[in-house]
Amino acid sequence: MKALQYPHIGAAPVLTDVPDPEPGPGQVLLKVTAAGACHSDIAVMSMGADQIAFPLPLTLGHEGVGTVAALGDGAKGFEVGDSVAVYGPWGCGVCHNCAQGKENYCLRAEKEGIFPPGLGAPGAMAEYLLVDDARHLIPLGDLDPVSTVPLTDAGLTPYHAIKLSVPRLIAGSTAVVIGTGGLGHVAIQLLRAMTPARVIALDVAEEKLELARSVGAHEAMLSDGKAAARIADLTSGNGAALVLDCVGAPPTTALASECVGIEGDVTVLGIGGGAVSVGFGSLRYEATVRSPYWGSRAELEEVLEFARQGVLDVHVEQFALDDAPRAYELLHDGKINGRAVMVP
Amino acid sequence: MKALQYPHIGAAPVLTDVPDPEPGPGQVLLKVTAAGACHSDIAVMSMGADQIAFPLPLTLGHEGVGTVAALGDGAKGFEVGDSVAVYGPWGCGVCHNCAQGKENYCLRAEKEGIFPPGLGAPGAMAEYLLVDDARHLIPLGDLDPVSTVPLTDAGLTPYHAIKLSVPRLIAGSTAVVIGTGGLGHVAIQLLRAMTPARVIALDVAEEKLELARSVGAHEAMLSDGKAAARIADLTSGNGAALVLDCVGAPPTTALASECVGIEGDVTVLGIGGGAVSVGFGSLRYEATVRSPYWGSRAELEEVLEFARQGVLDVHVEQFALDDAPRAYELLHDGKINGRAVMVP
Amino acid sequence: MKALQYPHIGAAPVLTDVPDPEPGPGQVLLKVTAAGACHSDIAVMSMGADQIAFPLPLTLGHEGVGTVAALGDGAKGFEVGDSVAVYGPWGCGVCHNCAQGKENYCLRAEKEGIFPPGLGAPGAMAEYLLVDDARHLIPLGDLDPVSTVPLTDAGLTPYHAIKLSVPRLIAGSTAVVIGTGGLGHVAIQLLRAMTPARVIALDVAEEKLELARSVGAHEAMLSDGKAAARIADLTSGNGAALVLDCVGAPPTTALASECVGIEGDVTVLGIGGGAVSVGFGSLRYEATVRSPYWGSRAELEEVLEFARQGVLDVHVEQFALDDAPRAYELLHDGKINGRAVMVP
Amino acid sequence: MKALQYPHIGAAPVLTDVPDPEPGPGQVLLKVTAAGACHSDIAVMSMGADQIAFPLPLTLGHEGVGTVAALGDGAKGFEVGDSVAVYGPWGCGVCHNCAQGKENYCLRAEKEGIFPPGLGAPGAMAEYLLVDDARHLIPLGDLDPVSTVPLTDAGLTPYHAIKLSVPRLIAGSTAVVIGTGGLGHVAIQLLRAMTPARVIALDVAEEKLELARSVGAHEAMLSDGKAAARIADLTSGNGAALVLDCVGAPPTTALASECVGIEGDVTVLGIGGGAVSVGFGSLRYEATVRSPYWGSRAELEEVLEFARQGVLDVHVEQFALDDAPRAYELLHDGKINGRAVMVP
Repeated sequence: MKALQYPHIGAAPVLTDVPDPEPGPGQVLLKVTAAGACHSDIAVMSMGADQIAFPLPLTLGHEGVGTVAALGDGAKGFEVGDSVAVYGPWGCGVCHNCAQGKENYCLRAEKEGIFPPGLGAPGAMAEYLLVDDARHLIPLGDLDPVSTVPLTDAGLTPYHAIKLSVPRLIAGSTAVVIGTGGLGHVAIQLLRAMTPARVIALDVAEEKLELARSVGAHEAMLSDGKAAARIADLTSGNGAALVLDCVGAPPTTALASECVGIEGDVTVLGIGGGAVSVGFGSLRYEATVRSPYWGSRAELEEVLEFARQGVLDVHVEQFALDDAPRAYELLHDGKINGRAVMVP
Repeated sequence: MKALQYPHIGAAPVLTDVPDPEPGPGQVLLKVTAAGACHSDIAVMSMGADQIAFPLPLTLGHEGVGTVAALGDGAKGFEVGDSVAVYGPWGCGVCHNCAQGKENYCLRAEKEGIFPPGLGAPGAMAEYLLVDDARHLIPLGDLDPVSTVPLTDAGLTPYHAIKLSVPRLIAGSTAVVIGTGGLGHVAIQLLRAMTPARVIALDVAEEKLELARSVGAHEAMLSDGKAAARIADLTSGNGAALVLDCVGAPPTTALASECVGIEGDVTVLGIGGGAVSVGFGSLRYEATVRSPYWGSRAELEEVLEFARQGVLDVHVEQFALDDAPRAYELLHDGKINGRAVMVP
Repeated sequence: MKALQYPHIGAAPVLTDVPDPEPGPGQVLLKVTAAGACHSDIAVMSMGADQIAFPLPLTLGHEGVGTVAALGDGAKGFEVGDSVAVYGPWGCGVCHNCAQGKENYCLRAEKEGIFPPGLGAPGAMAEYLLVDDARHLIPLGDLDPVSTVPLTDAGLTPYHAIKLSVPRLIAGSTAVVIGTGGLGHVAIQLLRAMTPARVIALDVAEEKLELARSVGAHEAMLSDGKAAARIADLTSGNGAALVLDCVGAPPTTALASECVGIEGDVTVLGIGGGAVSVGFGSLRYEATVRSPYWGSRAELEEVLEFARQGVLDVHVEQFALDDAPRAYELLHDGKINGRAVMVP
Repeated sequence: MKALQYPHIGAAPVLTDVPDPEPGPGQVLLKVTAAGACHSDIAVMSMGADQIAFPLPLTLGHEGVGTVAALGDGAKGFEVGDSVAVYGPWGCGVCHNCAQGKENYCLRAEKEGIFPPGLGAPGAMAEYLLVDDARHLIPLGDLDPVSTVPLTDAGLTPYHAIKLSVPRLIAGSTAVVIGTGGLGHVAIQLLRAMTPARVIALDVAEEKLELARSVGAHEAMLSDGKAAARIADLTSGNGAALVLDCVGAPPTTALASECVGIEGDVTVLGIGGGAVSVGFGSLRYEATVRSPYWGSRAELEEVLEFARQGVLDVHVEQFALDDAPRAYELLHDGKINGRAVMVP
């Protein structure tokens, strides 16, 4: 079958022919109907050999949906032909975190060499995807694969982050979303659906602000030198209850530090190499900073429920699998509005 | 093999010969090393035919530990000979609650006819126990089977209940435990280990109060007509932050209603047919009443961790499997101090 | 000054002349600009002599807003002419609950004979209202007194209740509001603003359902014998995550018991003499039942913040203070749509 | 009266004669019975002129207890002679945070120039202390002033911090306390009383480790280059659920970063100029970092409740007020074991 692979350190992703996978006991084979491209794929492809814990070549794609093509012995709960989403952060399934469905925080994955598809295991940018266990699948029903596939990461990741802050996001509070791309433009919509907070979106280009406004941001502004002062004005000097930094580069983490209010949350989702310094006096009192990773299986079900309700308008640019290399180039150059999705 | 069965409505439990079970795909066969007897078994055996949703005869025993005797195809994570505890409240494994390891609250179990072992599926009071899926097992390591087996229900159930109230159980608060038998005497110890609350234990017999005091209750008193007034005195009139009713009979739910303070919790674990009435003015403001069922798989791991630390002193009266019918008679007559455990 | 008083047990409320109050040290005198009428006033007026803990006659009105007319010695933080809302559930100000601004749950109020205005202390249905301490006042700014005054109880009470359930009210969940009058029609709006839950409203009359739909209920239905089955259908048999019973009469508490799902909340706000029975098996697993009272001072600020954002559409029927007796008659007969408000 | 003052930038604290204070309306005058010395006093005395927001000279002492000597007009709730503790973080009393008793997080204090006693307002290291409002006082009853006074900061600050982490501190979890001085040695005791977590204490000197062990630390070790590896061993590689850094210097914040587990908390209480960097990959997944400040008034009551139960063994070195300058020298040199307390 055809697969988009990252062949070796420093190379560009290429379309390759690889053997068709077959499901072993408990495994499920999917015919991929859509696969999303993410900035973290680019991050992986810019790492040095010492930073990569898994062998190359790697079939890319950690956002995947498909239809069940075959079931291994003992794989239960699904029928051939079912449309399903893949919960990507695979874990051991038995540790204290996995026992709660938080496989993203598996305590043994690293030690046991368990990797998510597209981030170590063969990913979804291929004609077929082998899923290690039926517990990683969630039924999609009639949901459109192309507009749904980004929810498995670009939806789940901000959803999990926002859920942590829901108790703070009361009437009169402010949530700042930095970066209005794949994750950010979903985050804005989730914040509007889940909370009464005012949402302020920031990005570096006017057309991204347009997207932010169109999906519900109350305010959208350039993340330039005046942003911190404008946010201070808009919050009567009290700062934000949540700053969701979907970029995570040094200028955005600095801005986040400046904008967060007393007991507010800074949640860094972006992998841009920035960091927030937390010591006595470096932020307002008890501002709380964390960098989560993906979300739980139950949370993915909750995100998909939003999709079923028609609440989410996921902006997608669709590419044939053959065009995937070009899609990554556009993504790298910041020229994708929303999420790039491949269809085999 | 030998099994203790409840043969038909109205009968006493009897020791029977049944075929040896064999593990199918994904299943695990345990050689039982200990099985606990519970008041809820007696409750089941006093139900009418219209109340029982599963066929008889039923092999009893929803508290079980054993060693792995055989693994079905695709059953992973355990080796023959491993000592394991069984997480009893089996669910579908895929619904929103099961996705969080809360199989006790499975949304599909009833519809799909899934029952816990000993409460619909064949239970642990037998030489061998067939476990439907390896995910229901938790490694015991060196823990003693006999003193550990009650933790799978008599430990897990109060642990889950207490965890719900931990935020209220601050310094100066009071937790009242009604009924100091199987669940209650573990509850007292968990409260002491997990919170700084003062623990008041109540029961109807002086020797049970002795047990309560010996496992850490700050106060122990008869649950007679003076109990409510004494608790009011001990709490300066403010009432309890938690009343854990392990009996759940009309006199105890009435007492619980009287003792709980503003914003306090009443948690009814016992199945004695009592109920707390909650309407405006029937209890103190915002007293919160619930009746949970068992606990989650992750919570069982947490309870076993307490056992590993040597924090829990579980009182057990040990019986040979052949003597199980007599053990149930003693339990029925209130003559077991702590928990009755069968050893095949 | 003129005041609407409940003169003695069994009487109807009457307009009376009473001496003008004067503020002592720390007190604040308000010129009343609006006062709300509540079913609980009627409940008080139907109590027997043994149930009423305060002397009569009583000036009614526990929902009040006004402008500061005079400040007692040492009363700080306000100027004559400021428009303010009164936080009604006065407490001692120093106990552990009052220390958190939860004066509604004051641990000493009963013992010290502290009563809210209109429910023991002279209330807001008069030309002037004496407020015991400046800490009970919240600045209103430009908010309209007439449409804002119901928020001090009919807004605050459901807001507090809903806030307790916010973590359960995720995408795909259902909130049932029983009774769409004063509290209920605000509750529907708060649920829509604060959560992504589907809101089902129930009442006994079609015109009340119209109001429910117009303020945002996704579904509105008669609370008749078919309601439970329809809610079961709408929730795929899983039941509601929250049932907010704003009536609290026996038929509604029975309905609430039937509708609530596993781990769902039943919150009884109405004072109609009904109650939910909570024992093992009487409700679904771990359904949680409580009856709160009013809310905290900080929560009232949060409700007013919603009003400032224009999110709340409070339905009000306005009466001159002279017409207050008739307003109570209409309220008693269920002929007020929304809230009755007196303007002196 | 005599007062210990910080006279001007760069000077040592000196004993001075100042006018006796008199209580204005609503204020309370205390005859000081004990006042605690804190590292943060030393931090203030090493700031530059541009960093200090209040005028000098400053009477030191933000930990104070005393007996009521006189009440201003309208000051309620206390009698002359009452023994009271002072809640130090004074706020405006009316903002959204003060409305919840969280005056430590007052939204207006900075703007309105409101300072705690000893950190801007005249402090407790004097014969008399003027308290701005009776709401800042908490009755002490029979508690010993000298051993109780440190609880107003060295007790309250770690208590608030630990309370934030209680849900994570389950059986089998680990809490690491870095720095076992004034705050740290109380933190160890609070952790033992409030949670079942294993407590690991770290400090730079063996005699401090002795103190840590004597107040309940399960493990105590030097915070040297081997500490991180030893903690990893003790936690099976999973890291700590809480790292409470009572030092906050660069080596300790670095150690905290290394020790915290997935979803664990790092709480920086010390003001040693260190900081934890939080960006994607800089810590384990979703490790949460914050730096709180003091605690709420209700929390101080909770800490004092622990003292009433005899749970806390506060180590104190007692000095006459005349010897206060020497006490600060010893504190500066790390030669106080526990807390230095002045008695006028």
